[in-house]
Amino acid sequence: MTKELSVVGKRLPRPDAPAKATGGARYTVDIKLTGMLVGKVLRSPYPHANILKIDKSEAEKLPGVEAVITVEDVPKKRFNSYLSDLLVADATVKGDKQDEHVLSDKARYVGDAIAAVAAVNEEKAEDALKLIKVEYEELPAVFNPVEAMRPEAPKIHDFDEGNVIHKSYPLYQGDMEKGFQEADYVVEATFQTTKQKHCPMEPSACVASFDASGRVTIWSGCQMPHIGRRKIADIFDIPEGKIRWLTPPASGGFGSASSVRAEPICVALAQKSGKPVKLEYTREEEFVATISRQPVAQAGKIGVKKDGTITALQTKLILNGGAYFSHSRSSAMVSMNMFFALYRCPNIAAEADIVYTNSPVAGEMRGYGNPQAMFVLEQLVDMVAEKLRMDPVEFRLKNYKGVGEPSWMPTIPITSCALEECLELGAEKIGWKEKRARKKEGMVRRGVGVAINAHVSGAAPLLLEHSSVFIKLNEDGSANLVVGVGETGQGILGGLAQIAAEELGLRYEDIHVVAGDTDITMFDVGSHASRSAYVTGNAVLLAAREAKERLLKRAAKMLELSPDELDVRESQVYIKAAPKKGLSVAEIARDAIYNFRQDCLQISGTSSFEPKGSPPPFQAVFAEVEVDTETGEVRVLKIVIAHDIGRAINPATVEGQLEGGVMQGIGYTLIEDFIVDTGTGVTITDNFTTYKIPAALDAPEIEIILVEKPDPTGPFGAKSVGETAMISIAPAIANAIYDAVGVRITELPITPEKVLTALREKGK
Amino acid sequence: MTKELSVVGKRLPRPDAPAKATGGARYTVDIKLTGMLVGKVLRSPYPHANILKIDKSEAEKLPGVEAVITVEDVPKKRFNSYLSDLLVADATVKGDKQDEHVLSDKARYVGDAIAAVAAVNEEKAEDALKLIKVEYEELPAVFNPVEAMRPEAPKIHDFDEGNVIHKSYPLYQGDMEKGFQEADYVVEATFQTTKQKHCPMEPSACVASFDASGRVTIWSGCQMPHIGRRKIADIFDIPEGKIRWLTPPASGGFGSASSVRAEPICVALAQKSGKPVKLEYTREEEFVATISRQPVAQAGKIGVKKDGTITALQTKLILNGGAYFSHSRSSAMVSMNMFFALYRCPNIAAEADIVYTNSPVAGEMRGYGNPQAMFVLEQLVDMVAEKLRMDPVEFRLKNYKGVGEPSWMPTIPITSCALEECLELGAEKIGWKEKRARKKEGMVRRGVGVAINAHVSGAAPLLLEHSSVFIKLNEDGSANLVVGVGETGQGILGGLAQIAAEELGLRYEDIHVVAGDTDITMFDVGSHASRSAYVTGNAVLLAAREAKERLLKRAAKMLELSPDELDVRESQVYIKAAPKKGLSVAEIARDAIYNFRQDCLQISGTSSFEPKGSPPPFQAVFAEVEVDTETGEVRVLKIVIAHDIGRAINPATVEGQLEGGVMQGIGYTLIEDFIVDTGTGVTITDNFTTYKIPAALDAPEIEIILVEKPDPTGPFGAKSVGETAMISIAPAIANAIYDAVGVRITELPITPEKVLTALREKGK
Repeated sequence: MTKELSVVGKRLPRPDAPAKATGGARYTVDIKLTGMLVGKVLRSPYPHANILKIDKSEAEKLPGVEAVITVEDVPKKRFNSYLSDLLVADATVKGDKQDEHVLSDKARYVGDAIAAVAAVNEEKAEDALKLIKVEYEELPAVFNPVEAMRPEAPKIHDFDEGNVIHKSYPLYQGDMEKGFQEADYVVEATFQTTKQKHCPMEPSACVASFDASGRVTIWSGCQMPHIGRRKIADIFDIPEGKIRWLTPPASGGFGSASSVRAEPICVALAQKSGKPVKLEYTREEEFVATISRQPVAQAGKIGVKKDGTITALQTKLILNGGAYFSHSRSSAMVSMNMFFALYRCPNIAAEADIVYTNSPVAGEMRGYGNPQAMFVLEQLVDMVAEKLRMDPVEFRLKNYKGVGEPSWMPTIPITSCALEECLELGAEKIGWKEKRARKKEGMVRRGVGVAINAHVSGAAPLLLEHSSVFIKLNEDGSANLVVGVGETGQGILGGLAQIAAEELGLRYEDIHVVAGDTDITMFDVGSHASRSAYVTGNAVLLAAREAKERLLKRAAKMLELSPDELDVRESQVYIKAAPKKGLSVAEIARDAIYNFRQDCLQISGTSSFEPKGSPPPFQAVFAEVEVDTETGEVRVLKIVIAHDIGRAINPATVEGQLEGGVMQGIGYTLIEDFIVDTGTGVTITDNFTTYKIPAALDAPEIEIILVEKPDPTGPFGAKSVGETAMISIAPAIANAIYDAVGVRITELPITPEKVLTALREKGK
Repeated sequence: MTKELSVVGKRLPRPDAPAKATGGARYTVDIKLTGMLVGKVLRSPYPHANILKIDKSEAEKLPGVEAVITVEDVPKKRFNSYLSDLLVADATVKGDKQDEHVLSDKARYVGDAIAAVAAVNEEKAEDALKLIKVEYEELPAVFNPVEAMRPEAPKIHDFDEGNVIHKSYPLYQGDMEKGFQEADYVVEATFQTTKQKHCPMEPSACVASFDASGRVTIWSGCQMPHIGRRKIADIFDIPEGKIRWLTPPASGGFGSASSVRAEPICVALAQKSGKPVKLEYTREEEFVATISRQPVAQAGKIGVKKDGTITALQTKLILNGGAYFSHSRSSAMVSMNMFFALYRCPNIAAEADIVYTNSPVAGEMRGYGNPQAMFVLEQLVDMVAEKLRMDPVEFRLKNYKGVGEPSWMPTIPITSCALEECLELGAEKIGWKEKRARKKEGMVRRGVGVAINAHVSGAAPLLLEHSSVFIKLNEDGSANLVVGVGETGQGILGGLAQIAAEELGLRYEDIHVVAGDTDITMFDVGSHASRSAYVTGNAVLLAAREAKERLLKRAAKMLELSPDELDVRESQVYIKAAPKKGLSVAEIARDAIYNFRQDCLQISGTSSFEPKGSPPPFQAVFAEVEVDTETGEVRVLKIVIAHDIGRAINPATVEGQLEGGVMQGIGYTLIEDFIVDTGTGVTITDNFTTYKIPAALDAPEIEIILVEKPDPTGPFGAKSVGETAMISIAPAIANAIYDAVGVRITELPITPEKVLTALREKGK
């Protein structure tokens, strides 16, 4: 680590940037294949209904229509569209609830996919949809999870459990009774979070094409193409090797692309029609027919001694999973783990009820249960600190778990932690002490709040967690880095290129990344759980190391020296004892391939990397807000986000992730609200007119602090950043609002109405 | 070799067959990219002219036209479109004549590319061509190479040498004078071969697209994508790593796709317009603007003793290279080498004049100089055997060079040879003795003839010769074999899959081949010089061996045994001592990738293979013909072709190559004639109406004999087949005609007119 870095740590342009900035990037929707059909989906207008009969004969007769499919035409096997379902390590919960069909056997929410068509163009496909006659038998529907838990509630699935899939899914340690008895102060409260949508700019899209040998190629900007391949293999009973999954660039994933979305229906249409099919969701379909973050009703309780020691921590969740199970169990589990990951506490208990309702499906979204947990925990902590008359920053500094203590996975200790630095630097930048101390008066009042979090750098050992990488040297001295992750906008490919360049000793511009084609990339879990920089990054490091060894061996032969006497930097192999002498990598690479003395070979490297754990990145978020006490309106003036990155492979990319996360966090906190009409089951907020997300002009001043304390297990010390940025925005803002006006809002989004109501309640 | 083979040697379906048979295969012309333009080329109407001025302003103004280019817009650097030009090992002849521009600076033949356009559709592009005003200064033209050699001939290029590029390019050994003095009989004759066209079903086509970072992707069914990438790199001064060359399936190459064709102009148009461009040649352009086989005027002379010992062999070639140099030097060199490759002879001499004319360019075609050499040699041998009253088969058996003797590369001995078996089995099948002995009488007379050849299994050590291969195991137990050669119709991918399956112990259907994408495949010279089965095949063998070692290591761990105790066959790993016990490859592969005890990895293998030599396959061809003495018409009744394959990886594919070659040989012998009007320079035979090739109904009875005597250096003993099949068809037919009617035709094609004329001459 003492060697000076020449590529890692630099603010280098992302390889995907030029194409995206110039409009040259080609997304899934840009794919055109000869004879390609357009797919369309018929969706249920009822939130809950039996399907008595479907007559598709008229649709099939329409000229230009090549396939009309219903549940009768798709595999009988049930599945879970959540990809990581295949990765669960714990045998006792292996295979999350399998409750979906490619097309539904029953309408369970407004938007449930009932039938699909493939036709020569969009117009014909739309016409065909209108000709499908579905006879529904309407059933009573339920949208509220508490109501859905009642024995008399309409049963959405035929499972024994009724609508409650996981009653009291437990996580506990110590003695709760004793814990709360020992406490001098106990605080408890209940909270409600919302059904946030990922809102990538590109709605789900897929192209599927079978060849004459029965092999299928799928184009889709999936976050986890290798796992997607296996999912399709499982659903359609096609061996993995007969599926090729290609990932065109995706315009954002945020967890939405870690499930199969349009792919199963698209594959079924391609299979039925025997032709390539493109299935592109409309924005409205994207809203109703793909997953959202899980809305959670959550109670939290904390007990502390007078000296600030936490004696007990308890939480209970009711998670509205929507009509299908998706990621519900693992999100709840991670949420509970994260609730206990931050602070030392001997007595902990959590339980979660995961409930089916007749609403669009909830699943994975950036943060994966952690934003919900932190919205609860980080407000409870402030509430109890207030009782102790202790500064919230001090309280956190006293209680947080650091190096050597158990991480979010209690069996695996924390390997690095810069939370103290994050809290101290962040407090300094926001002007914590002065601003907390200032008087809160006038119509418009300002306040500051803090919230922290720890997250993951991959899912080990909870889920399967490994990556393999291939690298080869071209004759011009550049290298092609072949990785199984795709670019979903997070900037991973540039980061991996920087790791490869640094380790192999090449210039950054000499690394060409080839990504996300399952036929040619070695296995990689993909991009989820903030894992790629850490896990794939480590695999890149090892493959580059092998290629470097071979490069130096070749150079040593050419220079008649031993490889030990050489090193490589900025695409130059140099003699350590005489650093100005040596050969360029291009000379060596060209000699390896274009050597005319019968001494040729291809320099390459391969690797597999599987981590034992997942070093948590820590983070402190400070928010300054302005609250209008007459209108209830909250303006976020400034966010300071101090992040324990271990090593910023590319500080600009890390900052980009954090900035984006701040905005997504602000949307979650103040604006975004997914509304299902509880009369009709119709999603009212199914486009950007009704479902607002923050835009550039809504951005506050954002100050980012990257604290670099290299993690011993990370590539060049790196830990993750992807999910963290939005996790603690909501509690930081809620705590700042409390600081400003003394009201605590426990229900998202924090609208002016809720603030005004709280102010009025307080005023009474 | 004693182990029983389970995949190699089987008649298995080719992986490319289903798509091609069902119309599902997607060729370069099927590629559709967003915003893609259509390219068109303006070609010279004059065989020889200076270009005084080009006014492209009107064309540029036409709406929908995005680029108009001339020699002014393309790189100044001259190049040779012949790809193997980059592979020449001999430093003294390195870099064959560099005499081409992307667009010409002068018109040197009718069809020379003068300008090109890219427009939104074909109509606009055609319109634009008409608006380009070219001011030509016509120059005297020369079409006959003998005339072109005269000092006063119009000079086609500005080089010092005039039109004769290689005066007396020499190859000699021993003492010619002494050799002919020692001979009891000397025979000499002159021969003329033709400008045969490759005639793949798909004319040259290319798509080129630059991305915003300046990286270009090229789609073209090139035989040698890695070398094509370097050629484009050299021409356009783009580093190789910034070029991705993808090879959609090509509908036949036969050597036409071992040069760049439409690619340089297409790349130039894409570069100029900044948009993707598709450039597809018409059949007429394919005829005039891509290479053909070299027409050769060749004298041959042989001296023998009464006992049949050859004392001297001499030949002189005048090779009509056409307007640009292309492959002329190396074709002439191989032709001369092959002239001396077959028979023991202490005194040999050859020289070649390679001449520019104002005709379409000649270059590589299947056989690469060998068909021309054999047309001469194998008739001379029959002529001299007749003088000796020796059976032509006996003469050949007495004189051919076998194992341990010098091969076509005198420094490298022959490692295996089954020519004796080929001659004996072939003679038996055609009924040689009886048919030679029968009386030749009546209007329609039958005769039999024989001719032999030896060829190459790769170009080592003449040209750079190596291949690298990557293989990875999927979780279903199948393997992806990633190779740098493309499928140009020869069936190579199936053969390589068989080699991989056999060595790795998988079933054939469990090998998925990914081919011909320079971004992901390791370096491979490509498919030329009959090299892929031998060279890439050996690389596949080594990569599969490495993957197998890793597979058995993993299996051994699972079974708690040593890898030595295990082997794998038909996708089952078995315990040698108890062959019914073990694990399926799928179980092992799935455990490697989906192991939940933190013991995962990706099983893979890589290899580089570079041969020291190129084991020649030998071949004997027997032809039976019927000659109508009144019309001169020749009917080929039967061809028996006995081929020394070493090991037939897939006998069906080998037979397919041989059958196709027989037909191409029959076309060469009897029908195909490329005619350039010596007044105007216009190619008269520029489509399939005027240039006839044999069709299925023209096929004689073809009997194929595969002699399998494994070569010690080949993959499972394999040598090559690709080029050989057409090499000796013409001399075998010519010898059979002589047997039937006693006239010897030395000029191709052997038309009824020539036969009749010869019969009349003989009758005088």
